[in-house]
Amino acid sequence: MSQRRPVTAQDVARLAGVSQSAVSRCFTPGASAAPQMRERVEAAARSLGYRPNLIARSLITRRSRIIGVALGYLHNQFYPAVLEALSEALQAIGYQVLLFTAPQEGDADPRIADILRYQVDGLVLASASLSSRLAAECRASGVPVVLFNRTTAGDDGTESVSGDNEAGAAMIAAFLVAGGHRRLAYVAGLENSSTNRDRQRGFCAALAAHGLAPPRIVAGGYDHTQAQRAAALLFASGDPPDAVFCANDHMALAVMDAARHSHGLRVPDDVSIIGFDDTAPASWPSFSLTSFSQPVAEMVAATVGLLVARLADPDAPARQLVLPGALVVRGSARLPARGLVTEAGRRIWRPQ
Amino acid sequence: MSQRRPVTAQDVARLAGVSQSAVSRCFTPGASAAPQMRERVEAAARSLGYRPNLIARSLITRRSRIIGVALGYLHNQFYPAVLEALSEALQAIGYQVLLFTAPQEGDADPRIADILRYQVDGLVLASASLSSRLAAECRASGVPVVLFNRTTAGDDGTESVSGDNEAGAAMIAAFLVAGGHRRLAYVAGLENSSTNRDRQRGFCAALAAHGLAPPRIVAGGYDHTQAQRAAALLFASGDPPDAVFCANDHMALAVMDAARHSHGLRVPDDVSIIGFDDTAPASWPSFSLTSFSQPVAEMVAATVGLLVARLADPDAPARQLVLPGALVVRGSARLPARGLVTEAGRRIWRPQ
Repeated sequence: MSQRRPVTAQDVARLAGVSQSAVSRCFTPGASAAPQMRERVEAAARSLGYRPNLIARSLITRRSRIIGVALGYLHNQFYPAVLEALSEALQAIGYQVLLFTAPQEGDADPRIADILRYQVDGLVLASASLSSRLAAECRASGVPVVLFNRTTAGDDGTESVSGDNEAGAAMIAAFLVAGGHRRLAYVAGLENSSTNRDRQRGFCAALAAHGLAPPRIVAGGYDHTQAQRAAALLFASGDPPDAVFCANDHMALAVMDAARHSHGLRVPDDVSIIGFDDTAPASWPSFSLTSFSQPVAEMVAATVGLLVARLADPDAPARQLVLPGALVVRGSARLPARGLVTEAGRRIWRPQ
Repeated sequence: MSQRRPVTAQDVARLAGVSQSAVSRCFTPGASAAPQMRERVEAAARSLGYRPNLIARSLITRRSRIIGVALGYLHNQFYPAVLEALSEALQAIGYQVLLFTAPQEGDADPRIADILRYQVDGLVLASASLSSRLAAECRASGVPVVLFNRTTAGDDGTESVSGDNEAGAAMIAAFLVAGGHRRLAYVAGLENSSTNRDRQRGFCAALAAHGLAPPRIVAGGYDHTQAQRAAALLFASGDPPDAVFCANDHMALAVMDAARHSHGLRVPDDVSIIGFDDTAPASWPSFSLTSFSQPVAEMVAATVGLLVARLADPDAPARQLVLPGALVVRGSARLPARGLVTEAGRRIWRPQ
């Protein structure tokens, strides 16, 4: 049956034999209602084909119960994991995710006009390639914005939640130096991303602090195919590196496959490879990738927390949260003599 | 600046020096507007913090420009690829995806009441675990529904788009038999899913047609960890299989890793492994997985086509579309003597 004339909450209340306010409670996200009554009301609503007019209500409450989430691309398994956790955390408090993906391959902003057409209660900008301009435009529009896994240059008042990219990359440098590596390379992510900027800075600064030459830097663009080309540049050169830090796991898997299957190298005997994010495939035996973890669950919880606080108080001071990760040690890089500890079932590196 | 009093389209028109209908056109998804004017209007809208009230408009047009998409889980790389393609295809025609993920781990429906709270113009149900009840409830509510990568038992009038699960599984059986395999196993997906039902039926029927004994069937639940346990059951048994068909790639990668790294088996010398979906990791050199491809781009285009047709004519006859795939041959299974052809850069099997 396709719906012609709108069915009202009154119709549902009459059929279910409950009050109209009871019907309203059953269809208000987050509102409480006895399971038994909820069942009766939902059964009545189903049989009548009732569609609760949350939309009309949002005009009164100025709340759509929708959070916009802008993502660049989903090839990198970090983002599907984030999106799933974010969706579940928001659904648990009565919100749904309205998804905005970048129109082109990975490095274009969703159009601000597209986002603002929908009366979203808040926005999470989680694409590595998002311009700071978009964040500023969203803020100017009065929509609460949280940057996820990225920051804007300088404190411009945009709230953000990210992992500790600079410290993580510095720890990776220290780990590789302690493991006896001397010819290091860095496979860079998207040039315009804060994650790449911070990871590259942390890695290079730490190598310098240990008295090593700057790493050879090749562009990987957070892309599988580009990372394969980067690997060819590194491993086919006259002076191949003995260790490669890739700015994320997604590229590290491609570089590891290229090292073994295109260049006949043994990992880690001939070359050590380390990634960033600690996505699911890093733990698969084929890769056993040493990687700096980003705490997805904590980052998502912090993001939802910022949104809720902002919705409650639009004038609360903006916060930029940086959550610590850990260097998860597996088999893809030669080990230092000391500092390896097991914590919560994970083998991690904690230098003294 | 956080928004206090609503800014109207009239304010924007005045500042941009254009007509109010011009402003409306700029903020109507799909409507045409000269780029230059669009720029002026959007700049004015930004500076005023204008939020076009698509919501109010949807009360008049009864169109929210939102398509709900219900997914079970995103660990299986097939679904992120589908979600990204679906989002891009819908955005291109002025719609956005409202995401509904299953509350529990992979095998619970999103609550119908949660979905119907939002005035979605259509629904795509793409979770392997979705019950036919949910589809029926959505249809009863008058919302156009398309099942993606699943079908309901029997033609109950629910539209669907799926790959050719039965024929694909039958082709995999024929390929393995032609490759000389005789002791076959099947790692099953979620029991309540149509994809698993159809793939298992096609595989078993084809083996019987070739005069082979039924395969050993172990449960994998479309889950990485369960699939590892399934591999242990198969490979540690007294009579291990010489070929394993896994109901999707996500499980096949886990089974291949377990075969090599936990049971010391060579793939394909000791055991052949074949998956279903042909997701990105199947082509990674570490796996080089032979897999039956699902044509994601074509399936997404067909899904959008069904939704658009249904929105134009609610009473159009319901269609169930089954799109053909191909058996993409890589290195994880022993090869038959004939039938291998290269097509559009892919090596596929086409038996005579």
